[in-house]
Amino acid sequence: MASADHQAAAQHAADATAMRRALELAEQGPAAGVNPRVGCVILSPAGDVLAEGWHRGAGTAHAEVDALSQLARGAAAGATVVVTLEPCNHTGRTGPCALALIEAGIARVVYAVGDPGDHSSGGAVRLRDSGVEVTGGVLADEVEALLDDWLFAARHRRPHVTVKWASSLDGRAAATDGTSRWITGAAARSDVHRRRTAADAIAVGTGTVLADDPALTARDDAGRLLDRQPVPVVFGRRPVPADAAVHAHPHAPLFVTGAELARDLEELQRRGIRSLFVEGGPTLASAFIAAGLVDELLVYLAPALLGGPMLALGELGVPTIADALRFEFAAVERLGDDVLLVAHRHSTTRDERD
Amino acid sequence: MASADHQAAAQHAADATAMRRALELAEQGPAAGVNPRVGCVILSPAGDVLAEGWHRGAGTAHAEVDALSQLARGAAAGATVVVTLEPCNHTGRTGPCALALIEAGIARVVYAVGDPGDHSSGGAVRLRDSGVEVTGGVLADEVEALLDDWLFAARHRRPHVTVKWASSLDGRAAATDGTSRWITGAAARSDVHRRRTAADAIAVGTGTVLADDPALTARDDAGRLLDRQPVPVVFGRRPVPADAAVHAHPHAPLFVTGAELARDLEELQRRGIRSLFVEGGPTLASAFIAAGLVDELLVYLAPALLGGPMLALGELGVPTIADALRFEFAAVERLGDDVLLVAHRHSTTRDERD
Repeated sequence: MASADHQAAAQHAADATAMRRALELAEQGPAAGVNPRVGCVILSPAGDVLAEGWHRGAGTAHAEVDALSQLARGAAAGATVVVTLEPCNHTGRTGPCALALIEAGIARVVYAVGDPGDHSSGGAVRLRDSGVEVTGGVLADEVEALLDDWLFAARHRRPHVTVKWASSLDGRAAATDGTSRWITGAAARSDVHRRRTAADAIAVGTGTVLADDPALTARDDAGRLLDRQPVPVVFGRRPVPADAAVHAHPHAPLFVTGAELARDLEELQRRGIRSLFVEGGPTLASAFIAAGLVDELLVYLAPALLGGPMLALGELGVPTIADALRFEFAAVERLGDDVLLVAHRHSTTRDERD
Repeated sequence: MASADHQAAAQHAADATAMRRALELAEQGPAAGVNPRVGCVILSPAGDVLAEGWHRGAGTAHAEVDALSQLARGAAAGATVVVTLEPCNHTGRTGPCALALIEAGIARVVYAVGDPGDHSSGGAVRLRDSGVEVTGGVLADEVEALLDDWLFAARHRRPHVTVKWASSLDGRAAATDGTSRWITGAAARSDVHRRRTAADAIAVGTGTVLADDPALTARDDAGRLLDRQPVPVVFGRRPVPADAAVHAHPHAPLFVTGAELARDLEELQRRGIRSLFVEGGPTLASAFIAAGLVDELLVYLAPALLGGPMLALGELGVPTIADALRFEFAAVERLGDDVLLVAHRHSTTRDERD
């Protein structure tokens, strides 16, 4: 019995070591795109590394197949495959990995995180049904962290949505005459650009395009373009002039009607957009919020008062206080003269949706 | 020359020691009321304490006269008076202290803070004109801290005004149907009650009295009345019912029209109110803000969104962004699930007014 315990502990340690290597391999894959970053190590029954592989992006081999391809036919028989994501059970541009592993005679599969895909999950079950020993959850937290955005998008069938606005303390985004430059200061604006560069896409309504003609680029304090630019997405039906600044964006803008936001988001996810940064204006932000499609709020507050009719958010369809749309403060930061409040979807609501 | 320097340093140290004692005496006086807390020590030419005194409230002797009254006629000749506030030069319910000191033959007067009163200042000049040596500014910061509210009210001829509201992140004080209990949680409400008990008076508009019938008392978490209660002040012209909760307040409510807020505040200051806590509703808060009569904002923000028309603040008369009413964040605190933002009048504006 003591010997069995000892063997299990040694196995556990060996699995973790191999998974850590698989995670390193995964990180070599492309961060953006439709597919997740996945790494794979194939171990002999004695625990020696036979092959390594990783996924290089849509249309290329999955990590398990990439690793198998380095071995001669039959060389993987009886081996252990250690892979960061549950092997897929789906024939897409490549065949199902679960089947490839079964055909190669793999004896044991160790993975970190289950595949959340509608069509691609079920690999572990298929493997077990074929007599392969399967262990899931090894270094799951580390792999979840690597795949954060991709897992969110895959689980929710839509990008992670952040709505950002800047307002006075009394919730106004502009003065009565519509002027708003600059409600908040340089530190707040700089923070917005850092967050733009981290997002896959940036969304505005046609009203904002027509009124402000924003560039929708992520820039440094000197106004230079940052290396990574979010894809501009324009929501609405009104035509955008051919000379609008958004057409000069490094990425070609996407145009969606905004008539069915949930469907628009699904479409963005299918195009590989995992995170969407909604910048405005009030109509688009309010529509996302009222539709219950917002995961994170970023509210930049200036220590100023404006009064008047130019609200940062409009009607949200909340009749009474019990129906208030509840979030949770995740962070409160002072940025120069201003304050940034970060709020996340209330965990009760989030659990209901997960 | 070295000996003169040495003497000056010794004098300085002796002045500070005596002033510290005068400050202790001042703290024995009443914290609220029309008059400031003042303490006084009389020293012999050799530096021994001859007498001590402090002010016990309106209608009683000022601190200097209280100390002098303990000495036989002529015993103060050549002595030094150390007093926390510049001796007054005003005949009110008591005679001017400056004159009393001159008549007693005092050789030197040391004080901390100048008298900011319209009618009572000028004591130092009158003393010097009569040949008394006068030194001001000793331990000024400590005494300013003790007299904070009183000095503010005396210098501005009105109470220090704090406007408080609780709102959702989008600046709504209630849902569309008017319900608002509770936008913010227990920790925020508890904080409001602690601040109520520290204020001399609490202000609401007649609209709020008619709509919510608030008690306007400062209570602990169990709902018990705290020891010190702010005087309730009701602004507006609409009649308040005889059975309104405000009539059951430990202090009789004051009623003012609100037609001229600046004049109303002067009247409150004359009644001994040094600090006013404006609780609402939106009409009264907006009126104080638009009139430029607000020194401090307390904004309790819940991590919730409401949308709709029930704004925490209404119209403020700001046509364009350059005219935004600027404040400065003084503190940002998390209170349970909520956030409290404390903002003070922008220092540029404050300097213009001081």
